[in-house]
Amino acid sequence: MVSLELVRNCLDTVSLPAEVAEHGQNSLLNWLGLAIGASQHQAIEIALATALELGAPGEVAILGRREKTDRLWAALINGMSSHLFDYDDTHLATIHHPSGPVAPVVFVLGEKYQIAADKLLRAFVLGCEAELRISRAIYPSHYDLGWHITGTTGVFGAAVAAGILLDLSEEQLLYALGIAGTQASGLREMFGTMTKSFHPGKAAQNGLLAAMLAKRGFTSSRQILEAKRGFASVLAPNYDLNWVNANWGEKWEFLENTFKPYACGIVLHPTIDACLGLRSQAEPEEVKEIRLRVNPYVLELTGKTTPQTGLEGKFSVYHTAAVAYLDGDASEEQYADAKVRDPKAIALRAKIRTEADPNLSEDQAEANLIRQDGSEAACFIAHATGSLQKPMTREALERKFRKLTQPVIGKVKSNALLSQFDGFVRLSDFNAVIKNCRP
Amino acid sequence: MVSLELVRNCLDTVSLPAEVAEHGQNSLLNWLGLAIGASQHQAIEIALATALELGAPGEVAILGRREKTDRLWAALINGMSSHLFDYDDTHLATIHHPSGPVAPVVFVLGEKYQIAADKLLRAFVLGCEAELRISRAIYPSHYDLGWHITGTTGVFGAAVAAGILLDLSEEQLLYALGIAGTQASGLREMFGTMTKSFHPGKAAQNGLLAAMLAKRGFTSSRQILEAKRGFASVLAPNYDLNWVNANWGEKWEFLENTFKPYACGIVLHPTIDACLGLRSQAEPEEVKEIRLRVNPYVLELTGKTTPQTGLEGKFSVYHTAAVAYLDGDASEEQYADAKVRDPKAIALRAKIRTEADPNLSEDQAEANLIRQDGSEAACFIAHATGSLQKPMTREALERKFRKLTQPVIGKVKSNALLSQFDGFVRLSDFNAVIKNCRP
Repeated sequence: MVSLELVRNCLDTVSLPAEVAEHGQNSLLNWLGLAIGASQHQAIEIALATALELGAPGEVAILGRREKTDRLWAALINGMSSHLFDYDDTHLATIHHPSGPVAPVVFVLGEKYQIAADKLLRAFVLGCEAELRISRAIYPSHYDLGWHITGTTGVFGAAVAAGILLDLSEEQLLYALGIAGTQASGLREMFGTMTKSFHPGKAAQNGLLAAMLAKRGFTSSRQILEAKRGFASVLAPNYDLNWVNANWGEKWEFLENTFKPYACGIVLHPTIDACLGLRSQAEPEEVKEIRLRVNPYVLELTGKTTPQTGLEGKFSVYHTAAVAYLDGDASEEQYADAKVRDPKAIALRAKIRTEADPNLSEDQAEANLIRQDGSEAACFIAHATGSLQKPMTREALERKFRKLTQPVIGKVKSNALLSQFDGFVRLSDFNAVIKNCRP
Repeated sequence: MVSLELVRNCLDTVSLPAEVAEHGQNSLLNWLGLAIGASQHQAIEIALATALELGAPGEVAILGRREKTDRLWAALINGMSSHLFDYDDTHLATIHHPSGPVAPVVFVLGEKYQIAADKLLRAFVLGCEAELRISRAIYPSHYDLGWHITGTTGVFGAAVAAGILLDLSEEQLLYALGIAGTQASGLREMFGTMTKSFHPGKAAQNGLLAAMLAKRGFTSSRQILEAKRGFASVLAPNYDLNWVNANWGEKWEFLENTFKPYACGIVLHPTIDACLGLRSQAEPEEVKEIRLRVNPYVLELTGKTTPQTGLEGKFSVYHTAAVAYLDGDASEEQYADAKVRDPKAIALRAKIRTEADPNLSEDQAEANLIRQDGSEAACFIAHATGSLQKPMTREALERKFRKLTQPVIGKVKSNALLSQFDGFVRLSDFNAVIKNCRP
């Protein structure tokens, strides 16, 4: 009954606590900035060219671009672009990026059917809450095995959001979860390639398709989550499905969603903070060695020693520490292909040493600087920027949004969107948002 | 290097042995009959209505119907329809249905680009060979865990076939396998619902998409099969990747592909043969009990005691044995919804007893009939019809094709297709085939 109870919980939640709604608004804003910001990326060009080659009709917007496609293609492409900079929101307890698979569904259905903003926000938050609770139920064994959890459980979030927006019945939404869950996929092996960003996009597309099929009477399992050969049992060596429905409406996993200040995996953020803290201590040429002490996940996820592309640089703690020290930042430009091949970055990254320390939590790191003259300096980060204990402020979020969107849509539209997302729930015309998302 | 070696093997195989080519032709024919035969099924109506709602352009044929869609939708829908009757081909050693995910790609690209028949046949066979070898490498642990292997490894077969037909380079095909493999999905929990047939269709669609993206430069993992967090390691508790490339071109897994005489899972076929062998021994009302001794998989896969729909009937050894005894057949009409609710079938299925016997192979079964007067009769099947030891003849295949297709496209086109598939490789115009596939 886990799946059915989840369906009932989602359909019965007709209003959101104010704090949850505000966090939803900020999450959508953060997501939108990234989707617009990466919309000119080569991966998007390729996906869009494929859609247009197939004659996809111009129905809804590709964010940050002039082109339009049908809903399914737009869900895929907008979901991809939001994840390309590895800069999107993160539920730290499960390393899940909740908005990626859900927000694209909200945008395409919101535009297509001109749905009211409060309903859009509710569908978005409940989709995120559903996927995060499923992620909780199967983390960490599922992730440790090699699944990219944003792709796998994301498809449920997309189906829930689509199901609410398409007004599915209880039985239809139950079947939609079944059709969605049997498509759950995405391997961590893809990290460092374009295919990583493909995962949240495909989850959005697959979840939306599931809801569309279910609405027309397509049948599926009624117990996708809990069945003997269902999602949890097959994709997770260990799991606890109590997470899915316990304290629904009282405890919100979604409130533990955080925003990233840096354009790379969250596990690298304490390392970046530590390097930023040290960089005034010595000129790069004075550095003999930087010793990093990090949570073991850092080396497991980002252990590439000699990245060849900017994308691979995001999976290199060595490159990341070097550019943070050199440039004082870790934005998209620190992960340009040219930056990875920059002799200064290469020289400094050769001086980075790492040590995994299971006593450090995932938002902690220490950097020890050893100068050529043998003298030392150290910086310990107890909680990285963007952690639950040290969240980004609304102002910092707005700076991030401007930085990402202004080069694509210009200052006027970027500011207009910021206004629209201040009191989003009262917005009367969602298509006015969409207009500002296009150059 | 497993993935790279597979890519090289597929690209370097430029001609097929005669026996393999002939088996390819028969497999395509068998597949086509099923795709046309089930093309009016409600699941197809739903999927097609969804495609048309989204404005999918009329590019290539939906087999057995007047409608057309773009290549991706047609790959999904044609793949679904070929699996809806649970009547398609089976590689017995892995319970994999090889044509389902591969043939749809061959049909849509063959029509779109008017590709020569010999190239289509080669792409089809190599796609099947690739997926079957991957299935060998991960079977049985992967299947036992709960994966629907036709969906999971099928996506590789679809990508290989698409890659050959789209003339991908070695690197592009390697990336296509990566993009395909990260989409691998499909749970056995879906058996008995429309979503089961969705799996081969989605594998076809996802594999084709992977090849299209790779052709335009989309990047992915270069070692999807063998990486630490790659396909085999994540989706199979135990595996042996030597199966993938060993004796390539000498030993063909594809030659172990068999065709089904009955419209249900292959595991039920020896039971059906046994019931057919006994039915002359007593009128149904004289039967007190029929005791079946079967391979343990039969009860695991088809243990439903009280099916409610025709589709569920295919997952009930009780219903299947009853209708085989009553009607002397197990075609699609024995799995109509009305048949499952037929009082005669319900009465007889209540008299079926089962016993799992691990000493029986999957193509063996024994039925013991006990009459009301206490007398007995028995029938033991050493090899079911459609097994490697007792394959369907070409004549039986043609009868099956006619039975499936004539109600949809009529006798003239059905016969014309049979002629075209006798010497398929010499066919000069594939679109002449497509014309006959539409009513």
